[in-house]
Amino acid sequence: METFEQVRVRRPELERFVAELLLRAGARRDGAEAVARATVDASARAFDTHGVRLVPHYVESLLSGRVKAAPEMRFTRQAAAVGRLDADDGFGHLASYRAVEEGVAMARETGIAAVAVARSSHHGATGCYTLAAAQRGFAAIGMTHSDAIVVPHGGLKPFNGTNPISFALPVAGEEPMLLDMATSSIPLNRVFLRRASGQPLPPEVAVDGEGAVTTDPHQAVALMPLGGAEFGYKGAGLAAMVDLLCSAFTGMAHGAALPPFTGTEESQPVALGHFFIILRPELFQPLALFNSRVADFLADLRAQPARPGARVMAPGDPEREAQADRRANGIPVDVATWTALRGLAARKGCVMPAAVAES
Amino acid sequence: METFEQVRVRRPELERFVAELLLRAGARRDGAEAVARATVDASARAFDTHGVRLVPHYVESLLSGRVKAAPEMRFTRQAAAVGRLDADDGFGHLASYRAVEEGVAMARETGIAAVAVARSSHHGATGCYTLAAAQRGFAAIGMTHSDAIVVPHGGLKPFNGTNPISFALPVAGEEPMLLDMATSSIPLNRVFLRRASGQPLPPEVAVDGEGAVTTDPHQAVALMPLGGAEFGYKGAGLAAMVDLLCSAFTGMAHGAALPPFTGTEESQPVALGHFFIILRPELFQPLALFNSRVADFLADLRAQPARPGARVMAPGDPEREAQADRRANGIPVDVATWTALRGLAARKGCVMPAAVAES
Repeated sequence: METFEQVRVRRPELERFVAELLLRAGARRDGAEAVARATVDASARAFDTHGVRLVPHYVESLLSGRVKAAPEMRFTRQAAAVGRLDADDGFGHLASYRAVEEGVAMARETGIAAVAVARSSHHGATGCYTLAAAQRGFAAIGMTHSDAIVVPHGGLKPFNGTNPISFALPVAGEEPMLLDMATSSIPLNRVFLRRASGQPLPPEVAVDGEGAVTTDPHQAVALMPLGGAEFGYKGAGLAAMVDLLCSAFTGMAHGAALPPFTGTEESQPVALGHFFIILRPELFQPLALFNSRVADFLADLRAQPARPGARVMAPGDPEREAQADRRANGIPVDVATWTALRGLAARKGCVMPAAVAES
Repeated sequence: METFEQVRVRRPELERFVAELLLRAGARRDGAEAVARATVDASARAFDTHGVRLVPHYVESLLSGRVKAAPEMRFTRQAAAVGRLDADDGFGHLASYRAVEEGVAMARETGIAAVAVARSSHHGATGCYTLAAAQRGFAAIGMTHSDAIVVPHGGLKPFNGTNPISFALPVAGEEPMLLDMATSSIPLNRVFLRRASGQPLPPEVAVDGEGAVTTDPHQAVALMPLGGAEFGYKGAGLAAMVDLLCSAFTGMAHGAALPPFTGTEESQPVALGHFFIILRPELFQPLALFNSRVADFLADLRAQPARPGARVMAPGDPEREAQADRRANGIPVDVATWTALRGLAARKGCVMPAAVAES
């Protein structure tokens, strides 16, 4: 995590504000609430790159016409365990919560189900939706593709998105376990943050305009896949899997053929795909056995000896610790985002949320 | 790929030999043929670490009683799209081909299906089974856990297996696309090969007995997760997903609680889990659209500009090129494996396969 100047805001207050801002920008209530829920949830879990920082971008998407304010989303059950959701160019957040709900309804009977989401838009943190399934007692695998910002292994020009994979699992007696990871080493936003802080990038995570590996954030324009110069074919291979599930299985174009998210034609829909697989644990194993296997795994992993100054953690554990702090002390909003939100609030006549503290 | 002295053998001849050796070691015909098919298939695709090199290990597993020669595998359909295969401590290869077959039968109707395999054993290259599904027009995701040889992120002692993820997809007019990757940067076998060749290991792929990162193959005793010292939480996160799907969903213990594959109690069954998800493309999209999306992705990816001396390839492409060579010139068997096979053949009264050439 990067350090930056920030304002802290309580979660309900922040969620109310984001929803109101989107409503006043023209969104229908369901869309506004889905974006508010997902972005504030991501921020509450310290997934700052995909949290409220993106709200100004979503407001602009709405105002430019890229995202439809009142989409008519259509769900079609194409087989006992397969559904397709046509998101009608609405918010990806609304589409993804809906997809998970439909997947849960199917998997309740069939044990596993897939929902392919078509004609959607950027949905923020994929983990918001797998988490929603896990909170209802289901396991979930979620993926989304995006436009090209990651070079292929050995390549010079962006071809893949950061194409994340998320996996969430219910855990008896505690919050679900949540893995939510880009298939690049870092998100592009990290490059921008390092430009501001002046710190160099880690080795083998980014390339310059010529495709050469660089640690200079001012030279870096694209990312490398997870695994770096030698093992990047693994990150790129995972990105290919995500892209194919989100394109060939949804009918959308692959990531590199999508319109760029930022650029000249911001009124054009992005026509993204997402892909969700939902599993009902108790149709695989008796629930008591399932729960004890999960508990054993987590307890044994967390008890592992660690390097000096480190701790062995399960997926999502670092975010869970930050979450406790944010629950107690409010969610930090960086100053650039706060300023952008203030400008939008003034334009739309919204009351800014009350700040808990500024640091 | 490492270079080593080798013998080359034609595929049918090698497959016949491996099956006969296992039959004479006591395996039932179905198990012998499954092991022969999978190991020779992996070798034919240049997946040498998981190919015929492992045959002596499988013969020993049978002779020691770890793997049952005549298992009674039982498949139970637990929901419309979920099956459980109890492999009865038989060969993991036989169990995995069977699991994929059952998954294909379910997914033909339901669109997606999962098969959780319990009480199994080492199945070699996971890609053999996802490929079998793709050859029948289905897409597949396959995973297996294994005993602990990879340290967790920030940890000192092995906890995860190399826990591979495989994804295969039918491609109209060519071989299926096949991703088959460990969630560590390298397999443990690479360490042993480097001990023989004296070459140092790449940085941040292995640790010594104290858990310190090392590039000395003689000091290395365990692996690091994909992503290395800084981003290894991603490889470890994927390994956790694989381990949970192969344990909590199958009823097996997690990887670090499994009996070690090598050690003193080699007659004890390993009680491994595998996990397969099978998808039927044409229940997601009209097949013509699906095929054209896959073709576009592969053509656009393969046409990407590359670093000097490199080429941008799709998952499985490097192996496919090696496969063409092996089809023409025979499958290479390294000398250590050849010697071990010769010893076993002599003990069991098998005729060694004819060598095409020695180099």
